[in-house]
Amino acid sequence: MNRALRAGLAAGAALTLIAAHAEDPPLRGFTAESSRIQREWEEKFRAIPDTGRIRAMLRTLAARPNHLGSPHMKQNAEMVRDAFRSYGWEAEIEEFRVLFPTPKERVLEMVAPVKFTARLDEPALKEDPSTSQKSEQLPTYNTYSGEGDVTAPLVYVNYGTPADYEVLERQGVSVKGAIVIARYGGSWRGIKPKVAYEHGAVGCLIYSDPKDDGYAQGEVYPAGPWRPRDGVQRGSVMDMPVYPGDPTTPGVGSKEGVQRLDWRDATTIMKIPVLPISYADAQPLLAAMTGPVAPAAWRGALPITYRIGPGPARVHLKLTFNWDIVPLYDVVAKLRGSTWPDEWVVRGNHIDGWVNGASDPLAGLAPELEEARAMGELVKQGWRPKRTIVYAAWDGEEHGLLGSTEWAEQHATELSEKAVLYINTDGNGRGYLGASGSHYLEALVNDVARVIQDPETGETVWKRMQARAIQNGDARTKAEARGARENLRIGALGSGSDYTPFIQHLGIPTLDLGYGGEDGGGIYHSIYDTFAWYTRFSDTSFVYGRALAQTVGTLVLRTAGADVLPYQFDQLVETARGYVGELKKLRDDEAAQIAETNRQLDEGTARLANDPWKPVALPARQPLAPSLEFSRLDNAIDSLSAAAQRYDRAMQVAVAQNLASVALGQLNGLLRTADQQMLIPEGLPKRPWFKHSLYAPGLYTGYGVKTMPGVREAIDLHDWPLANEQILKASAALGREAALIRKAADVLERKGIVP
Amino acid sequence: MNRALRAGLAAGAALTLIAAHAEDPPLRGFTAESSRIQREWEEKFRAIPDTGRIRAMLRTLAARPNHLGSPHMKQNAEMVRDAFRSYGWEAEIEEFRVLFPTPKERVLEMVAPVKFTARLDEPALKEDPSTSQKSEQLPTYNTYSGEGDVTAPLVYVNYGTPADYEVLERQGVSVKGAIVIARYGGSWRGIKPKVAYEHGAVGCLIYSDPKDDGYAQGEVYPAGPWRPRDGVQRGSVMDMPVYPGDPTTPGVGSKEGVQRLDWRDATTIMKIPVLPISYADAQPLLAAMTGPVAPAAWRGALPITYRIGPGPARVHLKLTFNWDIVPLYDVVAKLRGSTWPDEWVVRGNHIDGWVNGASDPLAGLAPELEEARAMGELVKQGWRPKRTIVYAAWDGEEHGLLGSTEWAEQHATELSEKAVLYINTDGNGRGYLGASGSHYLEALVNDVARVIQDPETGETVWKRMQARAIQNGDARTKAEARGARENLRIGALGSGSDYTPFIQHLGIPTLDLGYGGEDGGGIYHSIYDTFAWYTRFSDTSFVYGRALAQTVGTLVLRTAGADVLPYQFDQLVETARGYVGELKKLRDDEAAQIAETNRQLDEGTARLANDPWKPVALPARQPLAPSLEFSRLDNAIDSLSAAAQRYDRAMQVAVAQNLASVALGQLNGLLRTADQQMLIPEGLPKRPWFKHSLYAPGLYTGYGVKTMPGVREAIDLHDWPLANEQILKASAALGREAALIRKAADVLERKGIVP
Repeated sequence: MNRALRAGLAAGAALTLIAAHAEDPPLRGFTAESSRIQREWEEKFRAIPDTGRIRAMLRTLAARPNHLGSPHMKQNAEMVRDAFRSYGWEAEIEEFRVLFPTPKERVLEMVAPVKFTARLDEPALKEDPSTSQKSEQLPTYNTYSGEGDVTAPLVYVNYGTPADYEVLERQGVSVKGAIVIARYGGSWRGIKPKVAYEHGAVGCLIYSDPKDDGYAQGEVYPAGPWRPRDGVQRGSVMDMPVYPGDPTTPGVGSKEGVQRLDWRDATTIMKIPVLPISYADAQPLLAAMTGPVAPAAWRGALPITYRIGPGPARVHLKLTFNWDIVPLYDVVAKLRGSTWPDEWVVRGNHIDGWVNGASDPLAGLAPELEEARAMGELVKQGWRPKRTIVYAAWDGEEHGLLGSTEWAEQHATELSEKAVLYINTDGNGRGYLGASGSHYLEALVNDVARVIQDPETGETVWKRMQARAIQNGDARTKAEARGARENLRIGALGSGSDYTPFIQHLGIPTLDLGYGGEDGGGIYHSIYDTFAWYTRFSDTSFVYGRALAQTVGTLVLRTAGADVLPYQFDQLVETARGYVGELKKLRDDEAAQIAETNRQLDEGTARLANDPWKPVALPARQPLAPSLEFSRLDNAIDSLSAAAQRYDRAMQVAVAQNLASVALGQLNGLLRTADQQMLIPEGLPKRPWFKHSLYAPGLYTGYGVKTMPGVREAIDLHDWPLANEQILKASAALGREAALIRKAADVLERKGIVP
Repeated sequence: MNRALRAGLAAGAALTLIAAHAEDPPLRGFTAESSRIQREWEEKFRAIPDTGRIRAMLRTLAARPNHLGSPHMKQNAEMVRDAFRSYGWEAEIEEFRVLFPTPKERVLEMVAPVKFTARLDEPALKEDPSTSQKSEQLPTYNTYSGEGDVTAPLVYVNYGTPADYEVLERQGVSVKGAIVIARYGGSWRGIKPKVAYEHGAVGCLIYSDPKDDGYAQGEVYPAGPWRPRDGVQRGSVMDMPVYPGDPTTPGVGSKEGVQRLDWRDATTIMKIPVLPISYADAQPLLAAMTGPVAPAAWRGALPITYRIGPGPARVHLKLTFNWDIVPLYDVVAKLRGSTWPDEWVVRGNHIDGWVNGASDPLAGLAPELEEARAMGELVKQGWRPKRTIVYAAWDGEEHGLLGSTEWAEQHATELSEKAVLYINTDGNGRGYLGASGSHYLEALVNDVARVIQDPETGETVWKRMQARAIQNGDARTKAEARGARENLRIGALGSGSDYTPFIQHLGIPTLDLGYGGEDGGGIYHSIYDTFAWYTRFSDTSFVYGRALAQTVGTLVLRTAGADVLPYQFDQLVETARGYVGELKKLRDDEAAQIAETNRQLDEGTARLANDPWKPVALPARQPLAPSLEFSRLDNAIDSLSAAAQRYDRAMQVAVAQNLASVALGQLNGLLRTADQQMLIPEGLPKRPWFKHSLYAPGLYTGYGVKTMPGVREAIDLHDWPLANEQILKASAALGREAALIRKAADVLERKGIVP
């Protein structure tokens, strides 16, 4: 077999060489002929998206506040549905009913040592008329905050991460019975009240420090793009790393009449009141604090001495909500596939904004609609996708991925059986293509990035990504970008947008894409995220909107048209092997740090290096870390690697000979389950909704990804038995993946071997 | 010989073991008998210094402003001289006459886009009466600024280092014809106007940013120890890395009637006007600037967007000075040695302050006087040092090490022939012992640190230094502190205090010492450096003043009483070898960076990663770096290493047998030239006054040390031929050192070998 394979490979190589002289080599997953046709349609497609239409669509979508439950949101949903229909798509609004708390009372005042009442309001700007639509704007608040009426001393907790609480502990400062004030950044916002509550705090304020998000970064709006003094970052504080979607309907679509939890019993709703505030409102509170001076890394850009407290600033925080059930409108449109209508390429961007939402999310939705229009044009010219294309506009994303999660839960079985790809976008800006997702899609993303033109430089967007990797990367990244590796790496998915239910709950092959990096600003989740702001400071001429439509559209067309789903597993193998390397190092680092801490306690150096005037508490002694059973993971990855190599060889042979003679339906049916194999049926520890063994948002980082999360978080917690248990589960998942790939190679080899 | 030596060593080891059971092993450089006597006197000495007396002395010395040329300075000099005499010392005031410019006119105003006149004055505080001695205080200014009357746009240059100007160049911002505004920090202040002038600036403002030195660090004075909004850091901007001392008398003592340069021809006086300002005065200027937003690392803690300019802020800066020649009063006291009166142990601390100077320098001078008093007490009890002890109080340090430099230049021959050690202190605070100097003194410093009690913990100060090294150090430092190395490392000397003429011009064995690290604050060179501040925020009970007197006094007694000067060369060898390793790495890093930059230009990645909206200039192409002749240095260090090992063995044998039978006078006469051998007679490139091949202040860093400076700075400049030339000179210097050590071993071996 080996000899035959080698012969086949050599033949394949020769054919490719010839083909390369005659024309470009066939696209990944296509025969030479289907590739030629595909390329023609893709080129036609990319010529269609129009910056003027994207601009006009954005202006309409962002004309008024369009949050979940708002009149303009419903109008937008209907308008988007009608637009899809006008492009020749089937389109419907699918309605859910979701728990959506909005503020009844919001009070924040300092009662000592000086009186101060927080403004809790973003002023309208005469330079930007959209900001004056006061009656339609949601007030500044955090969705799924707890209710409460508390008066307590304030403690400054920096970003409010678990590591920050270790610093507080060393300083002898407890948040028990206190209200914490944390700055935005360093973790997802929902982590801040969760960790505060776990440490005994009774309330939580979250403010935007001007160092991270205000005048320190640049001129503030309307003079510049950055957050003005009264600007507030609204946002959900649902405990999303446990499960997203309606807190009262975990795991099922929240249709009218569904059985619901009482909201007081929903684990993802915060137990304490949480309120976001501006830096103008935060400054008097922080200035009134005493206690230890905050460490250098904790200091922001307010003109004060940052101190930790507790107190003497005492604040009164009162929050009550209307716990309404409101209608949610997902728009779902379909373009039926010709050959495999029951294989779906799904693509979505959310439609709801926190206020007007021009950059978040509508700058991503307008290009999505332009893609749909362009595909409609192709249909008129005779094109048909082989697979069914499903385009969605998700409502209620801002409050906890409500629209996407409820839809994915409602259609879980169908999606598990049909979806071959989910592509997400969430807004868009000026700069570089960013991509994260299932790592066997890395080659596909690189293929497409190599044919999209960057509007600023005229080079391909891939060339710009490569240039940035070389300019900013470490030695390994530089070498890889220069050719030590064929493809640029894509990131791993944590959370923070609508891809989460698809990849982490259902195991659907997933990508998240967007342009950005040259478009900084500080209007996120504020009334200043408007068409006026976007067209002054971000992708002002919508050339990156067009590039996004071209990029995502090409990915959709490519996947919908491929003879074999264009997955390449070697990058998955290499990435997973890298994660295991990281985990080994993490265990070793933690073990070394435990040993070092214990040694310093034994030696007395921890005590001797203490400043008697400002003593810090000595760290606690911990049991030494055992070695972990990493050989299980190593073996699983070796097995996966062998399977991937075999599949690659078989694919090369098949391409060189006759891909069309392969049992394509059977093969694709296997391939589309590539992420499903890596799900852990019982889910991750303490959060069964999250099932993926490779990717999850961190239980204590939020949006930030934890790769091989079960193992990694167990090591983070120094729970060594749990780490070993999770190693077994992750190894089994990788073993299932290897088995799948071997099966796929079987199918290929049945047709691909030279007799 | 080897066999004999080994036998001797074994005998020595056995003897040491016995001695260790009977009593402590002999002190380094002492016989068993002289060691026993020495220990008794040292213990008696350490019991004498008294915190109450240090406090009283500091209160008197800091009672009024005491800068060079002030009435209180002269009173202090006379009082100190008389104190020495009252302790039984010979003491004189040695007078010099030095150029001392003081302001005639100081004008700083913004003329556009808004009018603003800078205050340029530190307000008195009712909480601290010393601050109200207005008529005696020097105004806020930089000594040896140029004169000028310029109006120009402002450019913000961060710390004003050469690296900062590279950033400006990339941003396309030139300082030609502009006035720069730099913040304190990142380099010595004198570097800022020098580099600005070299880039074409016509004026320079230096301000204290509250991030580095103000409210961001902690509460400001008088509420806390940190710099208040109108506080100004005065300071000299003489080009000290070229030569210190009176700018008009380089190389010679500036006695009455000495031939002088015209001040306009003195190379160390700045060519452009320079003025230090407070952050209250800086804020309106910085807030009025536009141009590129400063990079994150350039941003301070003022509540503004830091922007680079140029302009539109235009400022008018006018400075004229009285270029007076004033008397300078060095106090020099002697306690004559009994055995070797022509070997001198010299110790100094400056006496002049910028204003009242409680912490800088008087908190170091008061313990010095207490040491002198204690030695006087010992003399009354029958003690006599074997060597002559010379104690000095240097005037005019703040303006450019005037008193110490002029004295060292005046007495250069005598010092070269007599000095066996110079110990410097410059103020003192609460915390850890810090020590830098000639590396063959490392063992001596460690020996002494092991017998001084830390007042805060009751452990030895060595134990605390060790604990801090373990707590804060990298892996190597931790391992070394835990015993991989016998001694804790001492630092290398750059500049910034009176040791410079001794080590870097004359090659005298030198140490600089002080306690600190738990005593932060922001009153440096301001009217707020007072007795009131010091006794609230620094070494409030003067226990560290006592510890300093005990530490330095023990070092002085030990060196003055040793049979053989207590130098140990293996640490010098190891340190020098480490420097060569650093230089190799520096060359390789620079070479790699040049190659990488050129490659990015060739690839076009530098261009492609540029943001078209905010393009930065591409870096310039540079010729590749050649390999350097490091083998010369490697060989020199191998030779030095062999010599040091031979000397160590010979010393162990001699100690084990009969140290007293060694030709001690001859041996000590060799040893005291250990740094002189490492001088380069013609000095360093462009600064012949600085002659040491191992240690110098950086030509473009100022106080910060550059080790192996000739080689290192040539590499910094990418001047590869110069680097090779300097490698030859440094190798020759190390060769002379090796020859000296071999000669010393010869002397020892003539007496030390068992027949």
